[in-house]
Amino acid sequence: MSPIRLDEPSEMPSTIGGGQITVSEYIFRRLCQVGIKSLFGVPGDFNLALLEHIYDVPELNWIGCCNELNAAYAADAYAKTSKQMAAVVTTFGVGELSALNGIAGAYSEFAPVLHIVGTTALAEKRSPNAKNIHHLIANRKIYQKPDHYVYEKIAKNFSIATASVDDDMEASCEDIDHVIEAIWRNSRPGYIFLPCDLTERVVPEERLEIALDLSYEVGCSSEKIEQVCNRIIERIYSSQNVSVLAGAFISKFRMNKLFDRLVELLEDKVNFFDTYMSKGVYNEEMPRYIGTYFGEKGNKVVSEAIEASDLVLCFGSFSNDMNTGFFSFKLGDDQIADINAQYTHFGGQMDTDVTMMDLLPVLVAKLDVSRVNTAVKYTNIPRQSLRNVHADVDAPLTEADVGRNIENLLQPHDVLIIETCSFMTGAYRLKMNGACLVNQCFWGSIGYALPATLGASLALRDFQKPGKVVTVEGDGSAQMSLPELVSMLRYNVSAIMLMLNNDGYTIERALNGPYRSYNDICGNWQWTQMLKTFGDINEEKSKSYKIDTAKQLYALTSTAEFHNEKRFQMVELIVPKFDMPWNYKQYEVKELSS
Amino acid sequence: MSPIRLDEPSEMPSTIGGGQITVSEYIFRRLCQVGIKSLFGVPGDFNLALLEHIYDVPELNWIGCCNELNAAYAADAYAKTSKQMAAVVTTFGVGELSALNGIAGAYSEFAPVLHIVGTTALAEKRSPNAKNIHHLIANRKIYQKPDHYVYEKIAKNFSIATASVDDDMEASCEDIDHVIEAIWRNSRPGYIFLPCDLTERVVPEERLEIALDLSYEVGCSSEKIEQVCNRIIERIYSSQNVSVLAGAFISKFRMNKLFDRLVELLEDKVNFFDTYMSKGVYNEEMPRYIGTYFGEKGNKVVSEAIEASDLVLCFGSFSNDMNTGFFSFKLGDDQIADINAQYTHFGGQMDTDVTMMDLLPVLVAKLDVSRVNTAVKYTNIPRQSLRNVHADVDAPLTEADVGRNIENLLQPHDVLIIETCSFMTGAYRLKMNGACLVNQCFWGSIGYALPATLGASLALRDFQKPGKVVTVEGDGSAQMSLPELVSMLRYNVSAIMLMLNNDGYTIERALNGPYRSYNDICGNWQWTQMLKTFGDINEEKSKSYKIDTAKQLYALTSTAEFHNEKRFQMVELIVPKFDMPWNYKQYEVKELSS
Repeated sequence: MSPIRLDEPSEMPSTIGGGQITVSEYIFRRLCQVGIKSLFGVPGDFNLALLEHIYDVPELNWIGCCNELNAAYAADAYAKTSKQMAAVVTTFGVGELSALNGIAGAYSEFAPVLHIVGTTALAEKRSPNAKNIHHLIANRKIYQKPDHYVYEKIAKNFSIATASVDDDMEASCEDIDHVIEAIWRNSRPGYIFLPCDLTERVVPEERLEIALDLSYEVGCSSEKIEQVCNRIIERIYSSQNVSVLAGAFISKFRMNKLFDRLVELLEDKVNFFDTYMSKGVYNEEMPRYIGTYFGEKGNKVVSEAIEASDLVLCFGSFSNDMNTGFFSFKLGDDQIADINAQYTHFGGQMDTDVTMMDLLPVLVAKLDVSRVNTAVKYTNIPRQSLRNVHADVDAPLTEADVGRNIENLLQPHDVLIIETCSFMTGAYRLKMNGACLVNQCFWGSIGYALPATLGASLALRDFQKPGKVVTVEGDGSAQMSLPELVSMLRYNVSAIMLMLNNDGYTIERALNGPYRSYNDICGNWQWTQMLKTFGDINEEKSKSYKIDTAKQLYALTSTAEFHNEKRFQMVELIVPKFDMPWNYKQYEVKELSS
Repeated sequence: MSPIRLDEPSEMPSTIGGGQITVSEYIFRRLCQVGIKSLFGVPGDFNLALLEHIYDVPELNWIGCCNELNAAYAADAYAKTSKQMAAVVTTFGVGELSALNGIAGAYSEFAPVLHIVGTTALAEKRSPNAKNIHHLIANRKIYQKPDHYVYEKIAKNFSIATASVDDDMEASCEDIDHVIEAIWRNSRPGYIFLPCDLTERVVPEERLEIALDLSYEVGCSSEKIEQVCNRIIERIYSSQNVSVLAGAFISKFRMNKLFDRLVELLEDKVNFFDTYMSKGVYNEEMPRYIGTYFGEKGNKVVSEAIEASDLVLCFGSFSNDMNTGFFSFKLGDDQIADINAQYTHFGGQMDTDVTMMDLLPVLVAKLDVSRVNTAVKYTNIPRQSLRNVHADVDAPLTEADVGRNIENLLQPHDVLIIETCSFMTGAYRLKMNGACLVNQCFWGSIGYALPATLGASLALRDFQKPGKVVTVEGDGSAQMSLPELVSMLRYNVSAIMLMLNNDGYTIERALNGPYRSYNDICGNWQWTQMLKTFGDINEEKSKSYKIDTAKQLYALTSTAEFHNEKRFQMVELIVPKFDMPWNYKQYEVKELSS
């Protein structure tokens, strides 16, 4: 294997002189200021001159991905894992459109990802005689000039802010700053479009000393915040059975510390629930942590407990089908204080200018815990866990066995990535052991988990966090983004990938056409050979296993060596084609004689 | 390897009864009517009910691809190779966006591809309380309802027509027909959006008896066509040195037969040139076929010959940077009759209502060849070929050697696919031997060639055409779309893939940062093991070779067995990292001691 060669220093001095730097370097140094250390992407002729300036900024590492969609997925997971921002660089047209599904996913799931696109030259973009430059869609009427801004217009659907750099460098820098700030504050993607003829334009270096404003924007007066908060507090005091439902936006809007403080205050008084998308937000050992609320589709005892509350303090919950047991939550409007990332809805009043970020600090400061009534103490709640799944260890491996072993495996600070696959549909029940969950619960693009493993692992490394990435991948999904496995070798990633080999799209089989060819994949992938074939001939950087019984899997996952192994580990798990998770739609499958 | 199981018959009868069929079947049977035999795509929960109806139409084969971008690439190549239409099926949001780069490429390069998207339910799309269903981007304001039509709006940028099926089945069928007709006539993509709750709605089967109107629309009176034609003909008669420049739109708008007739008429009188994007349009053995015009970047003798003409009859030429030697054609407006797919520009007059499709039949009918003056007869034009490259057979293999061997290999009716890679930049000089060229010369999305090999091979098979697909792929490009190699096994594809292993993005190295990490890939792919690892353990369906000298390559490609082999053949070609094509930008590369 050819060694990874360190880049020689840039041919261009970092500082042009006279206190000037290029706008390219300006962008990259701004990224460093918000904590980004790894930059994902794919080179292309419209971004090469920009990429050259990565080497002006030694703190920034270029992570060359196999394709742009994978790069966007990796960036999404980097942002979700680090709770910081991430950035991805693509080239005009072909690259940016390839990444679009990943950016749309980040937009939909509130992941702060900056997409930097190297575009055609400004001179060409503005020319009254604009020509058909490669990667640009020709006009519907071929004799009319093409629109070089066509992709920038589309990007507005998937971004919170965009900056199209032009020859007004001062205004462009302001736009760049604004995009980064908006991404951070709104926890959603933004775009910077940099024309290839402007990469060397200079801006004053001292502009970098103007600190980016990453504070949340307060949309109303402190009197109004206090007013809303008081109403909620009064209601808390007057309620007999209060629950707290923690949603996904707590982490996405970086409110964990304040929320933890609130939990600490209320720990003995009220009951605590999380949602699928917020798994890992609590210490699950807390006596009053009841479980993950998944409505009618979830654990009945958990659902009945929260639904019996006379007040549910709901923080940053994300209302979408996948997070709510297909909209089966049974909580009346009069029962909820919905304190959210963009609004507060309480007592029949909708305030779009009062948010969780406004309310939490005031709530924590003002709440007199002695006046909070002690809620029902549940003693019949089984600890959320799959450990009670009783697997015959000599029988073929099932997805339930896999879940149980993940619970054995997960350690505090680990990151569990679950692909949108059959396994995901039951995983809301998993005990997290202090690990956090990174997936695309709502966006649900299959193929996400494999590049996400790269992004999450680099985030742990970059921010020197303890823990390890453990990924559950499906074979049908893995083939969507397979090449990115090579990056595990290139960047020395030490994650664990549990590859469910169930011979196709089992999740789709459950919905329709269990035996149909459209749910088949070419079923003979040699998973344990994959990393060797991708370059790690002598297993210097990876290790592969093939497992087909619960006994074998338990033997593997229960050793300390397995969790501590520095190499990337690929564990192929042979599970039956129709083995479905624990609570998914049941259907009759008559095995064909084949 | 598990055998490919034939699907059992549909659980639903093909005809519901009473002469009714489902709208899903209606769409698929319309596709059959325009000649489509293979349908590309990826299953997803919003298209499963639709896909179920493939089995109502036994003439249609489902080709399950590894991801949606690959499916779109394969469909593009299927359309380009068959000169018919192609279709790709994806699922709402995640699938359709993943395919977008491929559809945009088809739009830009005039490939007739239908994109069918299974969407959320119509009831949900129209609901005043539309909810966050998975695969849908949440509203910018999370408390406002999401827009289920957001992707349909974006698709309009990349399509000639769209149909959004709703509960008015009669109108929807009209829209569906219109989209298919528009795709065919305009040779560009269109979309059908089918909500998942409407797949079982019925329409009268007899509607299928209304023939689709695939004729070109004539935009003006026959008098006007005649008038323009007469002016051109008069100019032909008065010119002394006429050339014919054949462009890409001849094939794209299916005018080959009429154009061939024109060439036959003029064969002894004028000189013939093609462009990069139209390579293969002529019989290269024709004495007056001069070569491929590539402006300043091309062969000087060829360029001087066409530029010396007093009239260039230019048919269906596509003006874009990659097809014109970066806009270096030197032909004055007064020198050209630009007879194009959407307009005719001649003698200072622009007619957007008179096209090549209007003019060619009239021109062929009216031209009196005896009145055409005999053009300069060039005797100094070397036959276009790379055979004169003198390779030291014991020296390391170069891309020039590869080109020479392709010329040895190509046979009439073969399809040559060239990736957007270093090799492409010089391939305009290749002798085609009656093969046709399928690539993304203008759109230039790297990664296209590998799935295109699947699509083109299936097109040859479906339409029982002789010939074979020969693909030149780059390693940097191959990693973009690598998993689709498995489909070569699944669908028993017998193409030849020449994999240039030059350790990264050589084409980008030529432009910028020859030693930069952003131009590196993980350089130890085991190409000859790939197909085994992807499932063909015993080389029953594939064969792999590793070649590093011209001598070895010649020995391989000059045997009849090699061209006739039924298995898929992967030929890894070890070429130097900085070996560049024959006419590309030259630059100094000082090898680093590593």
